[in-house]
Amino acid sequence: MRSVEGTPKVVSLNPDRRQSFYGRDIVSVKQFDREDLAFIMQVADEMRSIVRRVGATDLLKGYVLANLFYEPSTRTSSSFIAAMQRLGGAVIPIHGVQYSSVTKGESLPDTIRTLECYADVIVLRHPEVGASEVAARYASKPIISAGDGVGEHPTQGLLDLYTIQTELGTLEGLHVAMVGDLKHGRTVHSLARLLRLYGTRQTFVSPDILRLPEEIKQELIEAGCVVEETERVEDVIETADVIYVTRVQKERFADLHVYEAVKDYYEITPQLMARAKPKMALMHPLPRVGEIHYDVDDDPRAAYFRQMENGMYIRMALLAAVLGKA
Amino acid sequence: MRSVEGTPKVVSLNPDRRQSFYGRDIVSVKQFDREDLAFIMQVADEMRSIVRRVGATDLLKGYVLANLFYEPSTRTSSSFIAAMQRLGGAVIPIHGVQYSSVTKGESLPDTIRTLECYADVIVLRHPEVGASEVAARYASKPIISAGDGVGEHPTQGLLDLYTIQTELGTLEGLHVAMVGDLKHGRTVHSLARLLRLYGTRQTFVSPDILRLPEEIKQELIEAGCVVEETERVEDVIETADVIYVTRVQKERFADLHVYEAVKDYYEITPQLMARAKPKMALMHPLPRVGEIHYDVDDDPRAAYFRQMENGMYIRMALLAAVLGKA
Amino acid sequence: MRSVEGTPKVVSLNPDRRQSFYGRDIVSVKQFDREDLAFIMQVADEMRSIVRRVGATDLLKGYVLANLFYEPSTRTSSSFIAAMQRLGGAVIPIHGVQYSSVTKGESLPDTIRTLECYADVIVLRHPEVGASEVAARYASKPIISAGDGVGEHPTQGLLDLYTIQTELGTLEGLHVAMVGDLKHGRTVHSLARLLRLYGTRQTFVSPDILRLPEEIKQELIEAGCVVEETERVEDVIETADVIYVTRVQKERFADLHVYEAVKDYYEITPQLMARAKPKMALMHPLPRVGEIHYDVDDDPRAAYFRQMENGMYIRMALLAAVLGKA
Repeated sequence: MRSVEGTPKVVSLNPDRRQSFYGRDIVSVKQFDREDLAFIMQVADEMRSIVRRVGATDLLKGYVLANLFYEPSTRTSSSFIAAMQRLGGAVIPIHGVQYSSVTKGESLPDTIRTLECYADVIVLRHPEVGASEVAARYASKPIISAGDGVGEHPTQGLLDLYTIQTELGTLEGLHVAMVGDLKHGRTVHSLARLLRLYGTRQTFVSPDILRLPEEIKQELIEAGCVVEETERVEDVIETADVIYVTRVQKERFADLHVYEAVKDYYEITPQLMARAKPKMALMHPLPRVGEIHYDVDDDPRAAYFRQMENGMYIRMALLAAVLGKA
Repeated sequence: MRSVEGTPKVVSLNPDRRQSFYGRDIVSVKQFDREDLAFIMQVADEMRSIVRRVGATDLLKGYVLANLFYEPSTRTSSSFIAAMQRLGGAVIPIHGVQYSSVTKGESLPDTIRTLECYADVIVLRHPEVGASEVAARYASKPIISAGDGVGEHPTQGLLDLYTIQTELGTLEGLHVAMVGDLKHGRTVHSLARLLRLYGTRQTFVSPDILRLPEEIKQELIEAGCVVEETERVEDVIETADVIYVTRVQKERFADLHVYEAVKDYYEITPQLMARAKPKMALMHPLPRVGEIHYDVDDDPRAAYFRQMENGMYIRMALLAAVLGKA
Repeated sequence: MRSVEGTPKVVSLNPDRRQSFYGRDIVSVKQFDREDLAFIMQVADEMRSIVRRVGATDLLKGYVLANLFYEPSTRTSSSFIAAMQRLGGAVIPIHGVQYSSVTKGESLPDTIRTLECYADVIVLRHPEVGASEVAARYASKPIISAGDGVGEHPTQGLLDLYTIQTELGTLEGLHVAMVGDLKHGRTVHSLARLLRLYGTRQTFVSPDILRLPEEIKQELIEAGCVVEETERVEDVIETADVIYVTRVQKERFADLHVYEAVKDYYEITPQLMARAKPKMALMHPLPRVGEIHYDVDDDPRAAYFRQMENGMYIRMALLAAVLGKA
């Protein structure tokens, strides 16, 4: 086990943004401080309570969301659509480049500036790193990133953080193990960066060629996190409060031989879970293709479907917040 | 004309399910007894009345439907979308596998368990026989099948039954002729099974290679229906109360030579209709590609567009019923 | 500069249709007279006021729009979806032929007659000239054309006219220059025909092979417009009240060598705009692929994004009008 330590410290970014999310773009987890995160998780709690009691509200009645997906993502797009609808708002679904002006050669800024003529907020999924920031620069309405390439996926990071909070009751000083493709996995990058604010111990479990980028590791150390790396899940299974498993994503590999060599590297089984702490959370951003055995699904520590549900509450919270209705 | 007879009897399945459709999956016409069918057709009548008077209700305000189509079907998907919207509910449209986690290798149960985190009810169209039952087994929210492969298409069966009821005022003891591809035609299979509950005489008109599967024929005979087979529409045109024509579906044939040989086997023309009973119903699940001549459209007995409209009322009734609001 | 003059006259078509748009199809700009246009622009003004004050209304609550697009068009489809939603109505999105019964060989009239079983109004985009008129002939519910091939695009024409009205405060006697592919550009055809009612001077600026069809030129002359043609933007830049630039659309060319030869023929630059009148409107139906330099975007005379926004108000006005709620 490779270990790199640092000293915990309180991180407080952008104190002036605390008052309100109103009109803000959501393009990176780096834009949030602990007060921001506490606020949005509190709003998500309220959203969960509303949905469980009455299904929906009229908070965003009269508002329109343009859901602009240049890449397929059933899960994320459906989550945003449901979130907007349960807030009483409407959705323009734009799924698939073939319906898009992109096929006519239009630039992203022009597409964004057109859609904001019709909509009050734009959710953008794009294959290129940085696309959300470009969109945000040109838009006068709020842009919420739904993931850009191997870059950021901030709402996934927020829903993962919120899931840890709801599963374990705290975020402070936890031991979190991330497992799988840590090189390309943007969900891991986003979550690791959020957890740096809470004095966590983070262990990164991956084959050597899929290790966490050095840049992120340095960010965590500078923020005072304890950072460790290993190739074996067995090294963390008994101590981790959270095990966060990710899929090795075929579409991120230029060389399919490399993909074949590492794709079945990890599988969480009931046998492995038998050694884990009685109170811990097994998470996965889904879809899974073998990283977690189906027999684990009934384990009360298997949190991945609750994680999905939390995604809707976090997105409801963000939509309400950037439109000034939280 | 090949004829196989049986003794009529009263069929009453699942008496304990009569009270309510609340929380039920709709995956097969076999799950309904006459009381179920009477109930759902009565609710459909109420839905028709609401739509004709005021267009829509708020019965399902705050509810969300995930409309999950792994196969193209404008007609069925549009019908469900309109049904949910006219009930005041919202729809997550998921049309086209390319937008789906399926392309990332996800299993159907995982997709279903994810979508039910966002939605209150899931409509599923899938190319594989039995997919709806698999989905229903894993889901905690109601699943409504919108057709799976050459298997069942229960809501089509229900709307067809409802159309016969509204066109002719009764279902008892009718002579119903089914015409076309009776081997692959799941709409025929579903309707035939429903009609077995009403002491009907059913004549199956098809080329020899497209005959009704023996298994279904046996079910009908056991239920006491009169079952006949012929290759000629002329044998039924003068006596049938209902002529139900189906398309020979190219996509169901592995060998296109076989398709070419039978695709233009039947065409209902004004000349043929001149010999039919003055009060009868000519039906077709649509789309048609030549089985019914356009000149028949203005015939008052041509019921196929009313049949489409009835589809919306039946689906409104089912959505309201499984969500406990009928 | 080639010049062809005519005598202005008052044109008044279909006086009996003035009272109301209720139940009308919108398939051609030729169907409108000045009173129709004044009415619909006044309703659009009211829609703009509603959207700016409160975002949406419940005017079309309980109504359903089928948005049937056989060709990709993010812009137009999103505009109609937002328009319907901001009126409180619901939308069945049918985007992409692969989801359509068309792939099963169904005729357009059958598709239309099916969709009007579910919806109260149908918006149709189709690649073939005349498709909207065919649809309107078979439909009992209103059809609104969203463009058919190189034929008409009436709602685009209306939003362009409305933009000129709002930008310049009048439509009477303006000098309007149309630039680009005037042969295939249906937006140009529609706008030119509408402007014939206002005694305009219209200058058509294009390479020789992309000149305005003779038929339209004759219509304008007969209506009393001053009609001119040139190959150089420089000929109109100093006098035009409106410069309407269009993209050379690759998809309209059978021979790509011809496309390559003319595609970069025109570009509006800040240098060119420096010579234009201080009060004028630079318009473009978008998407653009180089016809207007991005540095022009901040020029207050650059009206193309306001033009997009106006599209939503015009479509709200049309939807409300044909459903009898304007």
